[in-house]
Amino acid sequence: MKHHTSTEAGPSTDDRSPTGVRARILLDCDPGIDDAMALALVLGTPSAELVGVTTVAGNVPLSRTTANALRLTEFFGSPETPVVAGSALPLTRPSVFAEHVHGSDGLGGAPVPEHTRSLTPGFGPDFIIEQLAAAPGEITLIAIGPMTNVALAVRKEPRIVEWAREFVIMGGSYTRGNITPAAEFNFFADPEAAAVVFGAGWSPVLIGLDLTLQARIDRDVLDRWRAYGPLSDNLLIPSIANYFDNGLGEQHLGPAVHDACAVAYCLRPDLFRTRRARTNIETAGAYTSGMSVVDFGVAAKDDPDATTGRTANSLVATELDTDAFWDVMSDAFAQVTATMTEHRL
Amino acid sequence: MKHHTSTEAGPSTDDRSPTGVRARILLDCDPGIDDAMALALVLGTPSAELVGVTTVAGNVPLSRTTANALRLTEFFGSPETPVVAGSALPLTRPSVFAEHVHGSDGLGGAPVPEHTRSLTPGFGPDFIIEQLAAAPGEITLIAIGPMTNVALAVRKEPRIVEWAREFVIMGGSYTRGNITPAAEFNFFADPEAAAVVFGAGWSPVLIGLDLTLQARIDRDVLDRWRAYGPLSDNLLIPSIANYFDNGLGEQHLGPAVHDACAVAYCLRPDLFRTRRARTNIETAGAYTSGMSVVDFGVAAKDDPDATTGRTANSLVATELDTDAFWDVMSDAFAQVTATMTEHRL
Amino acid sequence: MKHHTSTEAGPSTDDRSPTGVRARILLDCDPGIDDAMALALVLGTPSAELVGVTTVAGNVPLSRTTANALRLTEFFGSPETPVVAGSALPLTRPSVFAEHVHGSDGLGGAPVPEHTRSLTPGFGPDFIIEQLAAAPGEITLIAIGPMTNVALAVRKEPRIVEWAREFVIMGGSYTRGNITPAAEFNFFADPEAAAVVFGAGWSPVLIGLDLTLQARIDRDVLDRWRAYGPLSDNLLIPSIANYFDNGLGEQHLGPAVHDACAVAYCLRPDLFRTRRARTNIETAGAYTSGMSVVDFGVAAKDDPDATTGRTANSLVATELDTDAFWDVMSDAFAQVTATMTEHRL
Amino acid sequence: MKHHTSTEAGPSTDDRSPTGVRARILLDCDPGIDDAMALALVLGTPSAELVGVTTVAGNVPLSRTTANALRLTEFFGSPETPVVAGSALPLTRPSVFAEHVHGSDGLGGAPVPEHTRSLTPGFGPDFIIEQLAAAPGEITLIAIGPMTNVALAVRKEPRIVEWAREFVIMGGSYTRGNITPAAEFNFFADPEAAAVVFGAGWSPVLIGLDLTLQARIDRDVLDRWRAYGPLSDNLLIPSIANYFDNGLGEQHLGPAVHDACAVAYCLRPDLFRTRRARTNIETAGAYTSGMSVVDFGVAAKDDPDATTGRTANSLVATELDTDAFWDVMSDAFAQVTATMTEHRL
Repeated sequence: MKHHTSTEAGPSTDDRSPTGVRARILLDCDPGIDDAMALALVLGTPSAELVGVTTVAGNVPLSRTTANALRLTEFFGSPETPVVAGSALPLTRPSVFAEHVHGSDGLGGAPVPEHTRSLTPGFGPDFIIEQLAAAPGEITLIAIGPMTNVALAVRKEPRIVEWAREFVIMGGSYTRGNITPAAEFNFFADPEAAAVVFGAGWSPVLIGLDLTLQARIDRDVLDRWRAYGPLSDNLLIPSIANYFDNGLGEQHLGPAVHDACAVAYCLRPDLFRTRRARTNIETAGAYTSGMSVVDFGVAAKDDPDATTGRTANSLVATELDTDAFWDVMSDAFAQVTATMTEHRL
Repeated sequence: MKHHTSTEAGPSTDDRSPTGVRARILLDCDPGIDDAMALALVLGTPSAELVGVTTVAGNVPLSRTTANALRLTEFFGSPETPVVAGSALPLTRPSVFAEHVHGSDGLGGAPVPEHTRSLTPGFGPDFIIEQLAAAPGEITLIAIGPMTNVALAVRKEPRIVEWAREFVIMGGSYTRGNITPAAEFNFFADPEAAAVVFGAGWSPVLIGLDLTLQARIDRDVLDRWRAYGPLSDNLLIPSIANYFDNGLGEQHLGPAVHDACAVAYCLRPDLFRTRRARTNIETAGAYTSGMSVVDFGVAAKDDPDATTGRTANSLVATELDTDAFWDVMSDAFAQVTATMTEHRL
Repeated sequence: MKHHTSTEAGPSTDDRSPTGVRARILLDCDPGIDDAMALALVLGTPSAELVGVTTVAGNVPLSRTTANALRLTEFFGSPETPVVAGSALPLTRPSVFAEHVHGSDGLGGAPVPEHTRSLTPGFGPDFIIEQLAAAPGEITLIAIGPMTNVALAVRKEPRIVEWAREFVIMGGSYTRGNITPAAEFNFFADPEAAAVVFGAGWSPVLIGLDLTLQARIDRDVLDRWRAYGPLSDNLLIPSIANYFDNGLGEQHLGPAVHDACAVAYCLRPDLFRTRRARTNIETAGAYTSGMSVVDFGVAAKDDPDATTGRTANSLVATELDTDAFWDVMSDAFAQVTATMTEHRL
Repeated sequence: MKHHTSTEAGPSTDDRSPTGVRARILLDCDPGIDDAMALALVLGTPSAELVGVTTVAGNVPLSRTTANALRLTEFFGSPETPVVAGSALPLTRPSVFAEHVHGSDGLGGAPVPEHTRSLTPGFGPDFIIEQLAAAPGEITLIAIGPMTNVALAVRKEPRIVEWAREFVIMGGSYTRGNITPAAEFNFFADPEAAAVVFGAGWSPVLIGLDLTLQARIDRDVLDRWRAYGPLSDNLLIPSIANYFDNGLGEQHLGPAVHDACAVAYCLRPDLFRTRRARTNIETAGAYTSGMSVVDFGVAAKDDPDATTGRTANSLVATELDTDAFWDVMSDAFAQVTATMTEHRL
């Protein structure tokens, strides 16, 4: 099955990979097991350039997500990639972590070597502003952790919403949550940041749970992932084992690689079906804090789903060409493996 | 396809119809097009006894829902059924109506004759208490409008939660809403009442949108519904025409008969699949007010969906044997038609 | 100093005591030490008739407030006064009690004899409706506990707002609270009920903490209160001792008799200065739940305090003629003492 | 009357003016009429050094508050003072302005000359961090507008709470508000920022409405203020005229110079009486958003006002030596006048 992005689905893919045009990506993340796979996907895609990584508190505390970003870029053979630390706390709330999923080290205990490279000086939100300002219309911002850094950047420099080529978010859902019945973890951890970001005037692509749960690692995928040498042995297999062991895998018929889907959208939007929608973030609810309330009815006035009368502010991914997605992942892992080998020689 | 209620699905069906035991039903409602069909279903089921109807403000104001209950009971040939008016206002909020769906008359302009019968004196919540107190363990309470009356009854006489044989609710959903992206109309119209009811200590059966949208009137159903003489001509066809005309029908592949599903559960639980869950009602959200937040993870401690750590307080319907449902509806409509004819002679 | 009610202060006092006209009072309460004094004030005022007492959960649970109302009416020599139990729970929330102030028995351990009289059958909110319906324009409703009963009565029979001669509330404040920095206990214990009541369309008199803290029992008052035989020995002195012992007395330069002030307003409005205001009840705040937000700016359009643009819905007491108040209390206690003696003979 | 700061009132005054030690002040503001007077007070105090001014949206939009800061520093003869623009929007909410008080120009139409000086490059929150980092323990931060800049600074660099010598806030109240019955304007305009700031771990001094309404410009003050040449003619008198004309003056017996009180506390803490308290900011209330909920009961465990059981996080000003305050103001205005004259020569 090959999906095609619907006509309302945003930028055409003509000037992108697989047509040869380079994607320039700035990745805001909180590694995190699936962040690691997202990072490998960027670094393993020849047509993509990673202009930098900013880290945020999320799956684990900031000191840990930052250390993991340093370890992973070095492990993947790209120690020169800038890694800038961002906010240690949510915009207004106390911290929430997801160590029950990612382990206290954030990588499920996977034996990725400690880093020898250095942290890039600066503050994550400032780095986001600087990069986007330096190349307006060229860089795609991808946020796969709580959106504190992006919200702080928007408050300091509102023009980044014009400067970003595209903005892709892993977070939220339009049916049910994971950290609570209503909310997905990234938005739950910093609802106010998410609300600021969705109110900032751009039209981000939302890669939520409804999409990412279509990309579950089953036994077939797992078997393919055993073939990448140290990448398999020191990261993929042991980190996934953690997912399977704690039962998340069995439940979901295999764990989902949420964050990698957001990167995949940037590289191959043709694998995704999307719909325009109004996305509002609940910050006040007793049982719904951090929920993304997605109204698909805004796309067309005569669409009877329309319940809010408000305009669309997002493009929500609804369907994934799963087989092609796993092929893209495999190609990237193979390329990272090659780079790792070359880098060690 | 015949579903069977799962092992956790509550009372067995041994002592009910279709095994010959009489269901005694107290119906709290806000007619309402689909309320009318629910009422026809009760009155057209020989094994069911309708001990009374209480009305509440909801789809249309109380004066209108009450008048409709009087019109419908008389039209269906049961003018002796007690009809008692309940609360004109939600528990704490201003009123919300759904006249865009049900028309300003509440029956989509269907030419049901005006009533000649009288209103039963009293107050809806008091009638609920009296009936349940008079026959503990015998009467099933079915609420298919906003739950103001039930909440007021619970506050006055908390023991009704023990006296009700069973309590079936049409309301809420576990994925998306209809009046807003997050909330279903009945719960949205009085979230505080719903919260009181779910906190009262019984374990109601929740017939939400996820279930009721499986019972949509398609062209085949519509064709069957043309066969019932005055019932068809004065109610079923014109009221549904309203649904189709305003586009709701096309969207949902035909309008759903939400309220009738709740009655059907009482009569034929074997047609439903259900799951135990914790249902909390959001009363504080800016975008999620009235949402039912359903946590299925409470059923088993090792179920990784469990996110709240709280105990189950409801039995949520998830799947309907749709074909059998429409057969049950047809049988009831045929019986009502016979009663109507007999009553007019 | 003699205050006079300001010109905007509501009904004139011409037809009341001290001019000889009988005040007919219905008292909704949660005894409670200061409730006991309020009850003594009504029963000790010859120009007042107590048509009944309804009880509500508040300072202590309903079973205890009801028992205390029975004990006190009998102790005060009025065992024939109807006492009807009301709501055991707040309108939508879990219970909050104030046993740290009133003791677990609600009377600070005062040795008031157990009652031998019976409870009047019925439900508090229904009794309120029946009494007001039976004598429209004649009876003053005084609510000195959480307003659950009044809210339930308003929902069942909205016309009580027209039938009540006047409605006096002890609750709230326009500066600071007592149970929290923002909220007074009665409103904190059931904010939704208070919100319903203030939105019902009447214009209640609000006797809040700003007023009642002007009526503190100092050593002089205490000395006067030693003169009433069993009334002193079995109620006044030991219950106040509890106040003083737990330090509340020292702090406030003597404990306040909050509830008695509401009754005193009914009997002698000339002792109070009042202002028209918009009173809204906060039900959503994290730190302000149950706060009465009083806007005095609504009285006159050119008053620069006006911040909400909304109309007045209450008459807020601001100043008390304290000396005259204590004289009124003393007269009532003397009369109760006489009645008690007579009743025992 | 000379007050003395109570023993719990924070830092001793031994090393400050009037004892000859220099106060180094960083002023975060939104000029604003009373901001202008606060700025004059700093610049007219020889023992004070103004290390810089950061601006924020508040009384009027950011472009206007920034222009006013440039105009005022130049007008006061200190065009070299750094002025850095901060946040144009509140942390998470839409903007609220107070143009009904300050005029659309922010200075009540006062003919302060347009500026010829330049804006200092940078971002307000970054400037706050840089200045405090460069001289830990030396600089007093004074915030007299909405606290967006301070909140953003705290999120970027949490150590500023240790680096600030002292932090003085004009905002909030412990009784009633001004923009709403519950909330003061600065906190109402950005409640989330205030909440972040009060949760950051320092112990700011809170100069709220209860204090500032003790510093009202009456006719005597106004007469003194006519003596300062261009300062009087181009700023003080016309800007105050606006206050008096719109009726605020009459109401409050003269308008208050809120912001100047915060600067005065920094210069002369001996003129203030203060109390330790827990200050929480309400962000969720329907009627109380932006309210500062001040609990004085935390200072001593046996203080019966204690209602939250939480620790103090602020020092709240309660009483002002008003006469001495006006003397301090007059001295500063005279000095500014001298500087202005000298600067123009």
